[in-house]
Amino acid sequence: MPAPSTTALRNLATQLRIDSVRSTSEAGSGHPTTCLSAADIVAALFFAEMRFDPHDPQHPEADRFVLSKGHGAPLLYAAWAAAGAFPREDVMNLRKITSDLEGHPTPRLPFVDVATGSLGQGLCAGVGLALNARRIGSDYRTYVLLGDGESAEGANWEAANVATFHKLDNLCAITDVNGFGQSRATQFDHHVDEFVRRWEAFGWHAIAIDGHDIGAILKALAAARATHGRPTMIVAHTLKGKGVSIFENKDGWHGKPLKKGAETDQAIAELERATVPTSEPAPVIPKPARRQDEGALPDFTTALPAPAYKAGEMVATREAYGAALVALGAIDRRIVALDADVKNSTYSEKFEKAYPDRFYQTFIAEQAMIGTAMGLASRGAIPFPSSFACFLERGSDFIRMAGISMLNVKLAGSHAGVSIGEDGPSQMALEDLAMMRGVPNATVLYPCDGVSTERLMALAASTSGPVYVRITRPKTPVIYTTSDRFVAGGSKTLRQSNDDAVTVVAAGITVFEALRAHEQLQREGIAIRVIDAYSIQPIDQAGLVAAGRATNGCIVTVEDHYAHGGLGDGVAEAVWDQGFVVRRLAVREIPRSGPSEELLDRYGISARAIADAVRALVARTHNQEVVMSPGRHPNS
Amino acid sequence: MPAPSTTALRNLATQLRIDSVRSTSEAGSGHPTTCLSAADIVAALFFAEMRFDPHDPQHPEADRFVLSKGHGAPLLYAAWAAAGAFPREDVMNLRKITSDLEGHPTPRLPFVDVATGSLGQGLCAGVGLALNARRIGSDYRTYVLLGDGESAEGANWEAANVATFHKLDNLCAITDVNGFGQSRATQFDHHVDEFVRRWEAFGWHAIAIDGHDIGAILKALAAARATHGRPTMIVAHTLKGKGVSIFENKDGWHGKPLKKGAETDQAIAELERATVPTSEPAPVIPKPARRQDEGALPDFTTALPAPAYKAGEMVATREAYGAALVALGAIDRRIVALDADVKNSTYSEKFEKAYPDRFYQTFIAEQAMIGTAMGLASRGAIPFPSSFACFLERGSDFIRMAGISMLNVKLAGSHAGVSIGEDGPSQMALEDLAMMRGVPNATVLYPCDGVSTERLMALAASTSGPVYVRITRPKTPVIYTTSDRFVAGGSKTLRQSNDDAVTVVAAGITVFEALRAHEQLQREGIAIRVIDAYSIQPIDQAGLVAAGRATNGCIVTVEDHYAHGGLGDGVAEAVWDQGFVVRRLAVREIPRSGPSEELLDRYGISARAIADAVRALVARTHNQEVVMSPGRHPNS
Repeated sequence: MPAPSTTALRNLATQLRIDSVRSTSEAGSGHPTTCLSAADIVAALFFAEMRFDPHDPQHPEADRFVLSKGHGAPLLYAAWAAAGAFPREDVMNLRKITSDLEGHPTPRLPFVDVATGSLGQGLCAGVGLALNARRIGSDYRTYVLLGDGESAEGANWEAANVATFHKLDNLCAITDVNGFGQSRATQFDHHVDEFVRRWEAFGWHAIAIDGHDIGAILKALAAARATHGRPTMIVAHTLKGKGVSIFENKDGWHGKPLKKGAETDQAIAELERATVPTSEPAPVIPKPARRQDEGALPDFTTALPAPAYKAGEMVATREAYGAALVALGAIDRRIVALDADVKNSTYSEKFEKAYPDRFYQTFIAEQAMIGTAMGLASRGAIPFPSSFACFLERGSDFIRMAGISMLNVKLAGSHAGVSIGEDGPSQMALEDLAMMRGVPNATVLYPCDGVSTERLMALAASTSGPVYVRITRPKTPVIYTTSDRFVAGGSKTLRQSNDDAVTVVAAGITVFEALRAHEQLQREGIAIRVIDAYSIQPIDQAGLVAAGRATNGCIVTVEDHYAHGGLGDGVAEAVWDQGFVVRRLAVREIPRSGPSEELLDRYGISARAIADAVRALVARTHNQEVVMSPGRHPNS
Repeated sequence: MPAPSTTALRNLATQLRIDSVRSTSEAGSGHPTTCLSAADIVAALFFAEMRFDPHDPQHPEADRFVLSKGHGAPLLYAAWAAAGAFPREDVMNLRKITSDLEGHPTPRLPFVDVATGSLGQGLCAGVGLALNARRIGSDYRTYVLLGDGESAEGANWEAANVATFHKLDNLCAITDVNGFGQSRATQFDHHVDEFVRRWEAFGWHAIAIDGHDIGAILKALAAARATHGRPTMIVAHTLKGKGVSIFENKDGWHGKPLKKGAETDQAIAELERATVPTSEPAPVIPKPARRQDEGALPDFTTALPAPAYKAGEMVATREAYGAALVALGAIDRRIVALDADVKNSTYSEKFEKAYPDRFYQTFIAEQAMIGTAMGLASRGAIPFPSSFACFLERGSDFIRMAGISMLNVKLAGSHAGVSIGEDGPSQMALEDLAMMRGVPNATVLYPCDGVSTERLMALAASTSGPVYVRITRPKTPVIYTTSDRFVAGGSKTLRQSNDDAVTVVAAGITVFEALRAHEQLQREGIAIRVIDAYSIQPIDQAGLVAAGRATNGCIVTVEDHYAHGGLGDGVAEAVWDQGFVVRRLAVREIPRSGPSEELLDRYGISARAIADAVRALVARTHNQEVVMSPGRHPNS
């Protein structure tokens, strides 16, 4: 099968330009000019370089393409339409609420691996896609198209180092240097040398070309394919709005479609005039050579051996995390782990020791770690990136996009809360539950001991979509046995009696404070119900409502987290229609350095604080008619 | 006054090493090895380079020092003690809950400008400190000490570009290349050339030196001072744990103090042997040449001219934001603005036009934008960094550290929520309220019209500490008049009657949905109270409790945000002890691209959705005894 002529590719680029202009004009919004600067690059990639099957875009060994400059979505859609993935006229549904051709690409479309549109994320995903090829022993290649403006995002330079460290010669990125950002000229305008110098300094093979010269593009792509031991960056000098005189290389046209009618017709006529008649048949896209499927996933919850911890044994959940990771890795080779240079704190080093080929080091670059995990997850791996929980917040925007992408990323955050002690506030995650609960389809798990950690890790591996496992620095006693079962949306009632006056809902480290408060109050003749809400999201609504009704509608929540968006808010919403009182015990000021126990007490989440809150509620209920009596319950 | 001899400086470096070892051994935790690698650099900076007054560390024209590698805190404390800021023996209080000498530096200490300890943030702050010198016309210089490990954080490379763009030759950074990270050797080990190549490529003057050669350090610092038009990076080859044979240049010693007793004594004895006897007097630190104070701040809330908007006029709050920013800038020159290339969407371009010398462009680098604002705020400026609200999440970890630093940063996030329409989920902030409410001392404001935007912007400028202003893309009608007053912790009751069955709490764009729902329900004979909760944090607790009590304990909240950590959770906690029912209307799935109005309705936060929720609550209250009757109110 002969490669298409440059004439044929130029005509295809023109078709992509026409469709980008038509679809954005029809939608009345979008970014035609950013599509036109990259049309020649995309035409060359799709019709003369990449191996893929338009009717099976998720073929495990197909070359990957990530449009990091996600606002170029109309160009991406036009390319897949031209390749035959869907009828060309469908591009006219761009941005309609009834269409998956959204303003920026999301994996609602079968040919999109990761959602883009938050700039500067695509290359991190590309690193993950390239590492995945190595993981499955495939020779597929990964291509990432970046804008020059988004190159200012630091995440690109994190990815640059990681790709160099892993010698990813199966990764090729292209920077579309059209010289214009959204609101002004970019920092480097059309000075492609500024980009070449930076990428070379970061260890990449860098090539500067004219991004509108099809021959030059093909030559650079071939040079990238021939490069061994390092990734390639093609720096392409282009013109924003190329081919349409109304806005070609003009500022002030970012994110502005042409008016329907005369303006659009003139632009399309101009573009059509650029088409060179040819009798050449449409190019045939080469399919991947072979197909190797990884098969169905096992049920990790049944496959994981029973935890070996003994009751009362002191073990930090972060240690149990490392052990569970190794056990999961033994069950299926799709389990992989990533680290940002804290593997000896999170104990992910145990996994590195057992499976060095499935352990990816990004050094101190959390955005790259999470972005790489996103790429891996999009190709069937089950990645567990872990760090101090507070440093995962460095990748907050990546986590947001992983949620939009509905990716199977399993984040683990250790050293959560003030319980870490002397290292001080900069090392204490007190917002991580809010961050992860803010991902609509995320499961948030929070084990308190070794047994629940192993069980919840298996649950995390078996649960599709983003999962967060919150783990703790200090050692805690094992309270569960191998017969205990843990499910998403479940909880454990650790203490209960018929006389319980208040329900105390705890999770993780505060479970042990709640148990201590139970003992203390028992000596005073006050009985409380103690619940371990190990599943923060989804939360055990039925269990919480039942417990609240059994305890005068009085609930106290206690969490080693700020009061916003964590356990307390989750419990309160679960019982919203019950007329309960829900007292939230949480950290409410910037904490200090100090001993763990002292900090838990100083910030009001200790056994003492719980007991005080319970006494206050009990006193209140005694001084008046109970807050809630079954007789007058709204739903009864 | 003669400069101290290299012998005197070496002895001072030894003293800093001794104090770093003593204090961490006493604390039983901390990072002595990272202190020892940088001791010579810090001794040279503090006692032969910087101009400052140890007794007035906040002198407006004193040179600045940022310890980006915050785990080197004991070294920083030892240096300030040696300079005379506090008694040397106080370093033995390191990490005690009673001391401000925390595990990582925070501005609880008068000589710390920004909290560090989340690695890779110090250089961004340094850019802000250097820009501030230009702002006040001072020749003070800014020094930032980075670790080699943290150089992997992308934020450093964002700062590198911003510093080059602004030609910050008053900024000098030093990278302490000791070759070891926390869990392993760094990516580049001791290859200083890898760093030199990168910094030169980013436009910096880079110098490689032996970081233990005092003469070489002084020479490099002099070369930095003599460099014009670009910042300087000194790349220092060092040994982790330098001077103590137990751990000098050995892996596995990160974050581990020596054992008290024999081990520590041996180390200190070794270090003391390195001291060279000299009769030279202690060096005198040169004070800043002049002192120029900016004076007390005006009350922006009274100084701001009355808003000129007419009732019913259609104006987007983001347009009003730009106008208010200009008005504030006219009142005091400490008002500055920062942009990450969306100034034409946030309308901060209005400020750039009026005050180009107080407008700082970082291009598409939100971490650098927020970090730069942190540096500026620490020196008396009142920075307003703004972007799309969702892209501020890129700087989530910087915002966390700004909170720990209690800095006067005024963030504004535009294009919040699904109301932006066709651009799709990647551009919609639905977690930003949770992120900002998670900063304990942050004020969170959410105007719904032009008048409230101007008033709340003045409130933001006059409120100390972090403030967030959430603004909206679509135009909304002006509903407030110049006589309306807005205060932190306030709210506005827009509709009320004696027969109100339910209280509807809205903010921003949803205020208008609530008003439409009011009309709709009125036609059905159902009266509702409508509250504009423009102050999300602090929230109007008294007002909400009163409204709830007046409306059968039934509250409906409606927000263009996910259900976690936003308005609904804030309202629910404010009324936690009332036994109310609080129905939260919020976005609960990943939204799609589509028309704004259709999205508000599809995701359940439209007038129709509010009316449905109200009808359901009314039906319930009619079917049974009211949920809340004043007679049995807990607090009554």
